[in-house]
Amino acid sequence: MEQASILVIGGAEDKVNQLEILQTFWQRAGGVDAQLGIIPAASGEPAMIGEIYQRLFENMGCKAVQVLDVREREQSEDPSWHNHLGEMTGIFLTGGDQLRLATLLADSALLTALRFYRERGTLTLAGTSAGAAAMGYHMIAGGGSGESPHPALVSMAGGLGFLPGVIVDQHFHNRNRVARLLSAVVMHPECLGVGVDEDTCAVFEADGQLQVVGRGTVMIVDAGEASYFCEPQPHSTLPISAHNLRVHLLRWGDRFDVQHRRVLPPLLHHCSA
Amino acid sequence: MEQASILVIGGAEDKVNQLEILQTFWQRAGGVDAQLGIIPAASGEPAMIGEIYQRLFENMGCKAVQVLDVREREQSEDPSWHNHLGEMTGIFLTGGDQLRLATLLADSALLTALRFYRERGTLTLAGTSAGAAAMGYHMIAGGGSGESPHPALVSMAGGLGFLPGVIVDQHFHNRNRVARLLSAVVMHPECLGVGVDEDTCAVFEADGQLQVVGRGTVMIVDAGEASYFCEPQPHSTLPISAHNLRVHLLRWGDRFDVQHRRVLPPLLHHCSA
Repeated sequence: MEQASILVIGGAEDKVNQLEILQTFWQRAGGVDAQLGIIPAASGEPAMIGEIYQRLFENMGCKAVQVLDVREREQSEDPSWHNHLGEMTGIFLTGGDQLRLATLLADSALLTALRFYRERGTLTLAGTSAGAAAMGYHMIAGGGSGESPHPALVSMAGGLGFLPGVIVDQHFHNRNRVARLLSAVVMHPECLGVGVDEDTCAVFEADGQLQVVGRGTVMIVDAGEASYFCEPQPHSTLPISAHNLRVHLLRWGDRFDVQHRRVLPPLLHHCSA
Repeated sequence: MEQASILVIGGAEDKVNQLEILQTFWQRAGGVDAQLGIIPAASGEPAMIGEIYQRLFENMGCKAVQVLDVREREQSEDPSWHNHLGEMTGIFLTGGDQLRLATLLADSALLTALRFYRERGTLTLAGTSAGAAAMGYHMIAGGGSGESPHPALVSMAGGLGFLPGVIVDQHFHNRNRVARLLSAVVMHPECLGVGVDEDTCAVFEADGQLQVVGRGTVMIVDAGEASYFCEPQPHSTLPISAHNLRVHLLRWGDRFDVQHRRVLPPLLHHCSA
């Protein structure tokens, strides 16, 4: 089951010191036996960013790392991806623009193959920044910050749908994105809001548990029991009036039951600095 | 009772168009019969800021506006404030530095007189920005933004204590202050966190109700039912792990029962833009 986890990384993950998050991905993907694929499709400089991650994983000791440099729809629609991905144990989606990533991969043979091997349980998936944002079915494509929460503050689009029940935001506290995640979640209360800080990772395990790795916090916003006197209207510029939102702040080692929307006791205590 | 309200303004209140918030203060303080005092003690340019507000209120039609330009402890300790404030119906605390304001007023004859007339119910109080931050007993003196919530992110000091049960933050979503208010509230869960956006006002009525006026949102953070596996430690740089925080987003017309920590139905519906 370990192999089936999805790593949702808030961007700016450590690439020079302990590389804790990238190491976690590599281990989850099989360690020395891992066969990794890097998809830099979100990036405006896919060759450069692809090479950066390829070297990082090779320097860790990963023997098989390939960059799947998809820049056109024709490439992602190539049916031979199915066989090609059969060997892979881990796929890493880089940062960039989540809208570019979703546009290049949506309804493609590559995405179908990724889903197939995900469901077979042989493919660990990781995404950082834009790659993290695209994990949900509802994706935050962009939005403003520094304003009061309101539906027009956030623009939504279709994501890759690997985590259908969550709306991910990233660079979370770092870029003042609480208001836009709140705005997204009150419009989709069936989804759990997951705001991931930089150099922080929410590891979604196959058993429906989320565990936090890294330096910052993961904020869970649960609007499942929220109440309204006025339902928020799509694209409205009116500030949101919403009550009884439940918020959890999670840090390294904390665990959360995504399906039942409740915090789980940590496996090990880590109360001191 | 109307006269006894406290207006907590998130800063940058409209001074050129409808002046809704300043008008609300003036009306609460008695309208045409109001006798207003402006305390610019928080500001580094008290003469200028005092005059700006004096003109604003005079242009509204207020006949009696004085600037109480307290710059030294000796001034605030002058016992004659007691008689002087006896005529006043409203006191406005300007923006600036809440630490300067609290240092100048703490344990002074002026503060004692303000408390006396507040308790007598004849003095409406308003504070914007730093003047709002100082309303609580626990005051956010400063803090960082763009980081994960952690106790060391926020520095606390003693406020003026007019609203002992709340911790106020201001310029709230505008300056990315959710993390620092969360950090303050988990350290003082007996206090309600009140984050007020710019050009927005939380009107604390004498009957314990809060009502929202203005353009943005007031975020209420209630840690009264929060749970922890590790109690957050003062001055810790460890990210906060805290669960089951209750959050309410309030906008114009929304009402909140501060004592019982629950949302009240609005007096009038305002669901359309």
